[in-house]
Amino acid sequence: MTITGKKQKQIAVITGGGDAPGLNAVIKGIVIKAKTLGYDVLGFKQGWKGLIEDSVYGKLDLDEVENIHMTGGTILGASRTNPYQIDKGEEKIIESLKKNNCDYLIAIGGDDTLGVANKLYKAGVKVVGIPKTIDNDLSGTDCTFGFDTAINRAMEQIENLHTTAKSHDRVIVVEVMGRHAGWLALDSGLAGGAHYIILPEEKFDVKSICDLVKKRKEDNKNYSIIVISEGAKPVDDNWFEDEEEKDSFGNVVLKKRNLANHLVKEIEKRTGAETRHVVLGHTQRAGKPTAFDRVLGLRLGVEAVELVDKNDFGKMVNVRGTEIQTVDLSEALEKNRVVPVERIKHMKLFTRSPF
Amino acid sequence: MTITGKKQKQIAVITGGGDAPGLNAVIKGIVIKAKTLGYDVLGFKQGWKGLIEDSVYGKLDLDEVENIHMTGGTILGASRTNPYQIDKGEEKIIESLKKNNCDYLIAIGGDDTLGVANKLYKAGVKVVGIPKTIDNDLSGTDCTFGFDTAINRAMEQIENLHTTAKSHDRVIVVEVMGRHAGWLALDSGLAGGAHYIILPEEKFDVKSICDLVKKRKEDNKNYSIIVISEGAKPVDDNWFEDEEEKDSFGNVVLKKRNLANHLVKEIEKRTGAETRHVVLGHTQRAGKPTAFDRVLGLRLGVEAVELVDKNDFGKMVNVRGTEIQTVDLSEALEKNRVVPVERIKHMKLFTRSPF
Amino acid sequence: MTITGKKQKQIAVITGGGDAPGLNAVIKGIVIKAKTLGYDVLGFKQGWKGLIEDSVYGKLDLDEVENIHMTGGTILGASRTNPYQIDKGEEKIIESLKKNNCDYLIAIGGDDTLGVANKLYKAGVKVVGIPKTIDNDLSGTDCTFGFDTAINRAMEQIENLHTTAKSHDRVIVVEVMGRHAGWLALDSGLAGGAHYIILPEEKFDVKSICDLVKKRKEDNKNYSIIVISEGAKPVDDNWFEDEEEKDSFGNVVLKKRNLANHLVKEIEKRTGAETRHVVLGHTQRAGKPTAFDRVLGLRLGVEAVELVDKNDFGKMVNVRGTEIQTVDLSEALEKNRVVPVERIKHMKLFTRSPF
Amino acid sequence: MTITGKKQKQIAVITGGGDAPGLNAVIKGIVIKAKTLGYDVLGFKQGWKGLIEDSVYGKLDLDEVENIHMTGGTILGASRTNPYQIDKGEEKIIESLKKNNCDYLIAIGGDDTLGVANKLYKAGVKVVGIPKTIDNDLSGTDCTFGFDTAINRAMEQIENLHTTAKSHDRVIVVEVMGRHAGWLALDSGLAGGAHYIILPEEKFDVKSICDLVKKRKEDNKNYSIIVISEGAKPVDDNWFEDEEEKDSFGNVVLKKRNLANHLVKEIEKRTGAETRHVVLGHTQRAGKPTAFDRVLGLRLGVEAVELVDKNDFGKMVNVRGTEIQTVDLSEALEKNRVVPVERIKHMKLFTRSPF
Repeated sequence: MTITGKKQKQIAVITGGGDAPGLNAVIKGIVIKAKTLGYDVLGFKQGWKGLIEDSVYGKLDLDEVENIHMTGGTILGASRTNPYQIDKGEEKIIESLKKNNCDYLIAIGGDDTLGVANKLYKAGVKVVGIPKTIDNDLSGTDCTFGFDTAINRAMEQIENLHTTAKSHDRVIVVEVMGRHAGWLALDSGLAGGAHYIILPEEKFDVKSICDLVKKRKEDNKNYSIIVISEGAKPVDDNWFEDEEEKDSFGNVVLKKRNLANHLVKEIEKRTGAETRHVVLGHTQRAGKPTAFDRVLGLRLGVEAVELVDKNDFGKMVNVRGTEIQTVDLSEALEKNRVVPVERIKHMKLFTRSPF
Repeated sequence: MTITGKKQKQIAVITGGGDAPGLNAVIKGIVIKAKTLGYDVLGFKQGWKGLIEDSVYGKLDLDEVENIHMTGGTILGASRTNPYQIDKGEEKIIESLKKNNCDYLIAIGGDDTLGVANKLYKAGVKVVGIPKTIDNDLSGTDCTFGFDTAINRAMEQIENLHTTAKSHDRVIVVEVMGRHAGWLALDSGLAGGAHYIILPEEKFDVKSICDLVKKRKEDNKNYSIIVISEGAKPVDDNWFEDEEEKDSFGNVVLKKRNLANHLVKEIEKRTGAETRHVVLGHTQRAGKPTAFDRVLGLRLGVEAVELVDKNDFGKMVNVRGTEIQTVDLSEALEKNRVVPVERIKHMKLFTRSPF
Repeated sequence: MTITGKKQKQIAVITGGGDAPGLNAVIKGIVIKAKTLGYDVLGFKQGWKGLIEDSVYGKLDLDEVENIHMTGGTILGASRTNPYQIDKGEEKIIESLKKNNCDYLIAIGGDDTLGVANKLYKAGVKVVGIPKTIDNDLSGTDCTFGFDTAINRAMEQIENLHTTAKSHDRVIVVEVMGRHAGWLALDSGLAGGAHYIILPEEKFDVKSICDLVKKRKEDNKNYSIIVISEGAKPVDDNWFEDEEEKDSFGNVVLKKRNLANHLVKEIEKRTGAETRHVVLGHTQRAGKPTAFDRVLGLRLGVEAVELVDKNDFGKMVNVRGTEIQTVDLSEALEKNRVVPVERIKHMKLFTRSPF
Repeated sequence: MTITGKKQKQIAVITGGGDAPGLNAVIKGIVIKAKTLGYDVLGFKQGWKGLIEDSVYGKLDLDEVENIHMTGGTILGASRTNPYQIDKGEEKIIESLKKNNCDYLIAIGGDDTLGVANKLYKAGVKVVGIPKTIDNDLSGTDCTFGFDTAINRAMEQIENLHTTAKSHDRVIVVEVMGRHAGWLALDSGLAGGAHYIILPEEKFDVKSICDLVKKRKEDNKNYSIIVISEGAKPVDDNWFEDEEEKDSFGNVVLKKRNLANHLVKEIEKRTGAETRHVVLGHTQRAGKPTAFDRVLGLRLGVEAVELVDKNDFGKMVNVRGTEIQTVDLSEALEKNRVVPVERIKHMKLFTRSPF
């Protein structure tokens, strides 16, 4: 294909934070649209780390991205590096962009990555942001790619676990992702037929869980599936210890709470029911994206390039209803989107006394 | 569970039109919410047919619906019966409701089913509608359940077909659902990596398809996947014959166009490439719903009962952004939601010359 | 990786006939084992066609094959070319091997491909064969790769179709692969809960099918799933016409029998039940292989290279119980493996009167 | 359906040990064949426990089992109760059979369950056994149902984890089932593209694993997937502690080794690579069976009833090649089937130095 674009300018692209299915669709969207308009696209490796260390992935062309939207992860790699915790981090990024002839930057990531993008914008970098979080908890958009894949992945496992729980009269506790918001537990739990769902939005009471388990037993339903967000907290904080590891943004990235493990013991002790747990972990973000996440990724990538082409920076592309729109980066980062009260009320209809 | 509801009134439920994954989640949502508020729920068989013929499925209780949201189809059965084509159809429905002590009616269906619901409302029936169309083409809502399942089902097949097309240097034409709107072809085609997508919204030109096939061959890409909506029409209408069957609403339900079949022959003749076709057919609406469709179904069902409880009839529940809202039935039925020009433009970025 | 093998000899590899999931696992097995022993591996494109036309895919190395066993199709491409129908076909193959410094040949394919391999062996080519047929009908081995993937693919669709058939009180006829042997219909039909299965091994009687449909209706089971092999034949041959296309081996590769289509009309006419059909077609052989097919492919590929290394030619590797063994090519080709009487009897237990 | 069988005798059925996908197919096979021959079938709950406590599931009829072969788990429930550890256990079982008019017993289970079956046979009970183990380690049969499902379930997760491991330059350790034999790790690891596989058959050396991780890094492959059987043991036994729970057969059913957890720390320490682990746990045995396991279950169930009908007791049905055969229970229980040396050698070709 010969392109006679109006500009020979170049766009840098990075993917920051944890990986999410749909990232490669975004990259494809960016490359196709950019090439059509006559821009070059240069990928940097592993988020901000690649820009700080001038670690270039390479020019992205049409052939390379043709089929990547059907794959999980990110071809560029990702990391949780915070440039503002690194000596002259900002300066190094700006130098790296200049050195590699990048006129523009598209940063794909969560609130941390986009927070950095916003600071860079204020420092003069022509940047556009694309929201990404598998937890679906960004306030500046209706939804983020990766989440739909994650809820389906988790739902399948939760649904499958019914057969083994039922065969052995067991309680199975399933821990899913979600440190600050319980969207994933909410949707995968409801969809997968969980009998109790525990969200970070509301401290949980072991007694209430055990009451449900006992109630189900009285109704001759000798098994229960409990879905718990990894960020869930008990009413009484003292019954288990934490051990944690933080990234350079101050986020907890590894928390050895053994939460599910402790919950299992409590349930066994209080109900007498044989109880086991499963931690879904990385399997929730692994593998191919769903159709929704692929199409959303392709749309967001294209829209970000349109912003670049309109010289409209310091913005993030987002989803409102069925439309792709834009919002100021600063506004987008204001608050976390947690599960609202009415959704929790709705959830309880299906996961408490009725059954 | 003992319920001491404020009312002992009863809600009738029917599911009309073609089945869609998520229908059973809606039914579960209705039953749980209704029971919690003290209503009984009575299911009628096979849409309007069941009401006309006084064919009762039975009272729906908590145990029966516990796990149905994880299953496809509709436990009530569905049909394409139009009461207004049947002698005293309306009268029979009203009698049936009265005879079975149903104070309210929740009708789940597409524009035909909801059109009937609206007429019944005008005739005095206390009715609430829930939108359903696997084609996602209802104007009164952002999206409908069943569609997300269908695009994933179609996408998987389209993506899988790459391996066999590539191994044999073949063109494969995949026909997907969509008579009036191309949403399903659009999203499943983009997500599944189709090289050309044909929608009902725009008449197609065989030459343009063949040009793409030839262009890919020149680029050493000896295979192509073409996705075509069943409702697609060629620029030149005369190159194949139609044979059709209509339902009682005047909709074409079976069209023996052999569209894919004819397209295959044209492509072979004009490009010399071995070409095959696959008609995905009923497999697109069969089987378990995705997480999205399950949760959406549960939410719509609950909301419909809330309308009943508020004595707010002649309404349809719908989706706007992340919210479940309501709209007048008459307003909801005004026009079909087709793929807009900007989405077609977006699609062409990925499915024409670039690759 | 530096290999200091005992020989610097080279093995040619081709994949013939229709593609089957597992072919790439075989290729990976060949390359890894060959490289470990110090051989080079040269791939030819599209089966015998590539050897006849000296069309080289390229040297296969470790990096290229690392992940291919997880993908469907064949990286080498496949075709149904019969060298013995082409002027000086055999001569050209031998020249091609010589010109490209190939000392040995591993041919992966069905009875046609292996029949050619056997003739080449008799003409002096040092050849080893690996059996491949998605229909599982080769007599010289307990099973072939690709088949397990195909039965799971078909089973999922058949099982899914229950929901839509049941919702609409329909009969659904599902046509699956299998021209001469009904293994695929047998296993996918039994596994997917088909109510009637039609194999090529036994002429079918429409009356018997309709009796089952009626019997189920009497038992309040208003839907039926009928699975039919594409090679099935009715007792009375005259009720539909054939239109066929043959490959260079004389095999029918495309048969426009519209078998399922005709069956649908007959069932509707005789039972009054709304009847639809689905032709699974290429979706059965498309996409990723199952675990069984991947592991089997890796084992067969390794074993074939061991034969080469032992100078043991004119053989085919095969499966007997849990072992990979070898058999003379001539012996392996003797007869087709059809579904035996006792399996048909077993099948009828589950698909006739009981339900 | 009216059956005029030659006998009005009754067969008791139990499912013992851990659940495995395919159990319900076996039950369906038993019921259909039994009913056809004129036997009744009585299910007991939860393995030997149900027989000891006279806890009857109920008579199994055709309608109840029609679709169960498509579901996971066991409708009868399962437990790990050893009657010979219970006072008068054997006596109670014999009484229970007599009291419920059961002339015959079909016991489905692993070596523990079948060991009990053999003792009962020697005590005069007319018993037939059907082998079941998800670990595939029974010596008396080529393969057992449930295993094929488990390897596919594990493979999908292992394959999916590539995308996230690669995006973050991580090592991911995946723990799969298999206490005494490594079949599941072997097949799921090979199929899922694991870079190192650890079996219980061979003590593992952390150094060798770390060497591979480093070697891959040198080759610019910054990620590795390590699959480990839960029963794996390190060369040096002292680097982690065990905590275990045994069932009444003396089998370890819960081993809090935190094996994967410890391995993660060692790999991080020695290679510097960010390392995470995933324990697949119950998800491997949960959910629907594959086509293979469904068909195998249906065949084994039928064959077991044929043995009953031939008055041929003290036997187990088994698989040899493509055939269902029979073997003495005593012979079948002789030794565990572990992964043989040649398969380990084959595995190492794909999971050590080459890549």
